[in-house]
Amino acid sequence: MRSNPRGLIPTLEVAPGKALYESNVLLEYLEDAYPDHKPLRPKDPYQLARSRIWTDFVTSRIIPAFHWLLQFQPSSSADGEEKLDKLRAEYRAKLLEFTRDMHPEGPYFMGSELSTVDLVLIPWAVRHWVFDHFKGGLRIPEEGKGGDDEKAWVRWRKWVKALEARGSVKATTSETEHYLPIYKRYADDEAQSELAKATREGRGVP
Amino acid sequence: MRSNPRGLIPTLEVAPGKALYESNVLLEYLEDAYPDHKPLRPKDPYQLARSRIWTDFVTSRIIPAFHWLLQFQPSSSADGEEKLDKLRAEYRAKLLEFTRDMHPEGPYFMGSELSTVDLVLIPWAVRHWVFDHFKGGLRIPEEGKGGDDEKAWVRWRKWVKALEARGSVKATTSETEHYLPIYKRYADDEAQSELAKATREGRGVP
Repeated sequence: MRSNPRGLIPTLEVAPGKALYESNVLLEYLEDAYPDHKPLRPKDPYQLARSRIWTDFVTSRIIPAFHWLLQFQPSSSADGEEKLDKLRAEYRAKLLEFTRDMHPEGPYFMGSELSTVDLVLIPWAVRHWVFDHFKGGLRIPEEGKGGDDEKAWVRWRKWVKALEARGSVKATTSETEHYLPIYKRYADDEAQSELAKATREGRGVP
Repeated sequence: MRSNPRGLIPTLEVAPGKALYESNVLLEYLEDAYPDHKPLRPKDPYQLARSRIWTDFVTSRIIPAFHWLLQFQPSSSADGEEKLDKLRAEYRAKLLEFTRDMHPEGPYFMGSELSTVDLVLIPWAVRHWVFDHFKGGLRIPEEGKGGDDEKAWVRWRKWVKALEARGSVKATTSETEHYLPIYKRYADDEAQSELAKATREGRGVP
């Protein structure tokens, strides 16, 4: 709260009294402040703009849809199961929209090089097990059963697999058992984070 | 809709079939694509990150508060006037939060140089007359009557004055009469833009 009056993490104190916040701003900052590091942003201005559009899409569209589904209580109404299914379909539709704009070969969003767009979504993608555990599954069609969306789901799986194989993703993902009590509070809609509260009010990422 | 499936403006087609959208992404794109033009982003990575935090604040906090106030219907409930006053106070509080992080001298947000942060807010600031016209005023305290907030309101007025004096702002602002029928639809909560609809649902900028 001292460093970031908005009370949100991540917050990065780059020097005493100089705090920065907002996840996507921090990702840009690290690129700007350490230009000798391997870049995680495309150089071409058009591709850079595309990467920013889809980075914003993750924050403004995908993460809210993830949380609306996760925190939904099917027992709250007679047609709860129908509503749950609608939220599942809406979340899958967002993933498809994202996937359809990926570089066709990849394996990463922008092509052969890892970039910020991949980094902002993978923490959520590796947690899709929470829907199996708490909400009756996400119901992404199995291989060969995707119908009109088959090509996009194949591309989606290729993307997930490439990201999951990276050392940085493995090193920053804990065993499921450590997440369970945290996600149970979200799944029961009892979490008290700013994100959980915003979701409860029908809003997006605060 | 062909160029931007999200159906929002501005949309910029940089080449046939290559469309970009999202206001703040476009501002960054113009900086990246025309590096020989006078820069509108600070060079220092920390200041650049600050400018992005406050650019995002305008989109995610100030513009929604502007529209919640503008589209609110005081006649909709018995305590409508109280609610209207609360929305006024909330909007003023956002302006103060923005202003308190301005460079102390200015006149612009980041200091003596105009930057993107100024550009994203000034179109809304020059339309504050809509609150006088439709919603009984915004009630920003007059000079010398700001109490604890006096210093911030003095800085706010300095910022507005500096921006209003710029040729680009004058050249892109029409006579009030041309805006009246458009803003009347917002003030009556009958506008059908995506922004108006999102506001009606209690959400922010789509």
